[in-house]
Amino acid sequence: MGKIFMLAPDSFKESMTAKEVCEAMEIGIKRAIPDAECIHVPMADGGEGTVQSLVDATGGTLIQKEVTGPLGTPVLAHYGILGDGKTGVIEMASASGIHHVTKETKNPLITTTLGTGELIKECIEKGITDIILGIGGSATNDGGTGMAKALGYKFLDKHGDELQLGGGYLGELDKIDVTDVLPQLKNINILVASDVTNPLCGERGASVVFGPQKGATPEMVAFLDENLRHYSKVVQQQLGIEILDVPGAGGAGGLGGGLIAFTNSTMKKGIEIVIEYTGLKEKLQNVDYCFTGEGGIDFQTKFGKAPFGVAQAAKSVNRDMKVIALAGYVGQDVEALYDEGFDAIFGIVPGAADIDTLLARGRENVARTSESIARLLK
Amino acid sequence: MGKIFMLAPDSFKESMTAKEVCEAMEIGIKRAIPDAECIHVPMADGGEGTVQSLVDATGGTLIQKEVTGPLGTPVLAHYGILGDGKTGVIEMASASGIHHVTKETKNPLITTTLGTGELIKECIEKGITDIILGIGGSATNDGGTGMAKALGYKFLDKHGDELQLGGGYLGELDKIDVTDVLPQLKNINILVASDVTNPLCGERGASVVFGPQKGATPEMVAFLDENLRHYSKVVQQQLGIEILDVPGAGGAGGLGGGLIAFTNSTMKKGIEIVIEYTGLKEKLQNVDYCFTGEGGIDFQTKFGKAPFGVAQAAKSVNRDMKVIALAGYVGQDVEALYDEGFDAIFGIVPGAADIDTLLARGRENVARTSESIARLLK
Repeated sequence: MGKIFMLAPDSFKESMTAKEVCEAMEIGIKRAIPDAECIHVPMADGGEGTVQSLVDATGGTLIQKEVTGPLGTPVLAHYGILGDGKTGVIEMASASGIHHVTKETKNPLITTTLGTGELIKECIEKGITDIILGIGGSATNDGGTGMAKALGYKFLDKHGDELQLGGGYLGELDKIDVTDVLPQLKNINILVASDVTNPLCGERGASVVFGPQKGATPEMVAFLDENLRHYSKVVQQQLGIEILDVPGAGGAGGLGGGLIAFTNSTMKKGIEIVIEYTGLKEKLQNVDYCFTGEGGIDFQTKFGKAPFGVAQAAKSVNRDMKVIALAGYVGQDVEALYDEGFDAIFGIVPGAADIDTLLARGRENVARTSESIARLLK
Repeated sequence: MGKIFMLAPDSFKESMTAKEVCEAMEIGIKRAIPDAECIHVPMADGGEGTVQSLVDATGGTLIQKEVTGPLGTPVLAHYGILGDGKTGVIEMASASGIHHVTKETKNPLITTTLGTGELIKECIEKGITDIILGIGGSATNDGGTGMAKALGYKFLDKHGDELQLGGGYLGELDKIDVTDVLPQLKNINILVASDVTNPLCGERGASVVFGPQKGATPEMVAFLDENLRHYSKVVQQQLGIEILDVPGAGGAGGLGGGLIAFTNSTMKKGIEIVIEYTGLKEKLQNVDYCFTGEGGIDFQTKFGKAPFGVAQAAKSVNRDMKVIALAGYVGQDVEALYDEGFDAIFGIVPGAADIDTLLARGRENVARTSESIARLLK
């Protein structure tokens, strides 16, 4: 009887999607063990690739949609509907991510999460009731007000005029008008994939910690932090919801806080959500060997990366199951992972080479390395 | 009871000697399996590193000696005396190799094997009776006349004067004077490690095939080939020994032929000699896993490279013994080796990197990869 291999890698960034890694692994394994049974569960950790992986793992659908980008101009974003037909999955970065701005245009005073809200609205209008929302990689610092505006909230100044988009205008917030909020919104559950525990404001807050990488100068950081603080006060006074000191409220430029204020949301670690929605543990039941991997693996992998979650899941199902990780880059002190559920970690790189060559040859390198590993296991 | 690991790699050129590779492998294996028993048999294929490996494998002695280099100026060479105390091991390249000349100074008209002969003489004077002589990497095209001169042979022109050193003067050879040949030489056995089967002259001969890489122009090639042909005729007429069409006579610029003419020599593939003198097969008897490796492994490895010989030896002892190869560079089509005794082949490179970094970090990369492999085997 053929051995059963679980193939549950994350994507190898800029080289292969998680699904493509699964396919390359299977090619190599089958060369060594033709009757091997390979189960593909492409993984992600809540960041880039999460939509693709959950769509791939559940047989869902990937949909492209033009929305408002972080700078107010249109961008082509995507979201997914899982195989169950009732769960949507969105990466905020797809609509409002840092990759949509350049070194010259990045400006957290004006960037907005409006497009993320437009994707949520699109899901709601399609009858989706549960949304998984990954909030990594944002270009924004608007407290999620753009997102809320897409769902019908109005943010008004003391003259009753709508604020301009962006965190730079939140200091003028006087009233939050809920008159036109989408009526369906109260029935929607949003599961927020976030590994961030930062509060909205202060030394560990969104503006101070994440503002600079979004283009904020020290003066802008102070201004944005003050604006978010004012915004949280208005939310507290008018909606009765505390978001200032909630862990995670500082994620994605305060989008974490906005989700708490304006939606029914729960926050959870990205890898935990992915493991749950892919049914990884159930699929691991009769598996003999578990392959995982990621573009880079090092001692930090144990802080919430997908291969770590996979290794933990595999060992929880069967502590004797061998967990083998492949990586394009094996970092220093990777041996620390041997105490964390990993049995072996192999680099796939065949020799001295520049990064572009390696990114282009990822498939053959994964296949070749998987073949050698499988030959040792047979 | 601890598993027994045979560690029989070749050197990783410019990075680690074979012995150092063994040590790095053991470090990694012991991290995974503390009670593993590791047998070190550093390998070589008759080329560079053969002296070091046989000395290391037999507990012999490495000796440095100044001899005459290929251009007639002194060079520091080395040779070995094996652990048995009666067998010497010499690499001709150490005394007369291409690395002793530059692009500017390489000139096969004048380069000489004299230094190689001086090393043989040194061994003889130390009471050595058996000599292993690796003849790869030469800078010479002198038919081994320099080597013979060091042992007492005189090569005279028609005036009775000694010829100048180098293949460019062999056309003037009139008489080979054996009066002063070292009397011990007839009792010395030389085992020549050579993978070359080329004859002395002609289209597949020493000058045509190997002359250009030693600096010969087309005109020089023709001249050198003619000189070697004349030389072989004199040897035939005066010593009664045929060297012109003997396979291997063309090795090392005709040193192969000179060894046939002037010494008791037997030619054998380098890897076979190394396997025999290291006692590899005997040491493989109770081994569970066999590790080998080389700086680079590709489909050509099966043409006489050390890891190929090791794999064949391991499978001849126990066809179920897993043979695992490590390499700094894993070439294309390496899968062809899976039909040739190899079970698995792993690159040791951790990620995108230039060659200098990789050469410097060979030890840690071998250790890390060996650890992961051993963790799969335990």
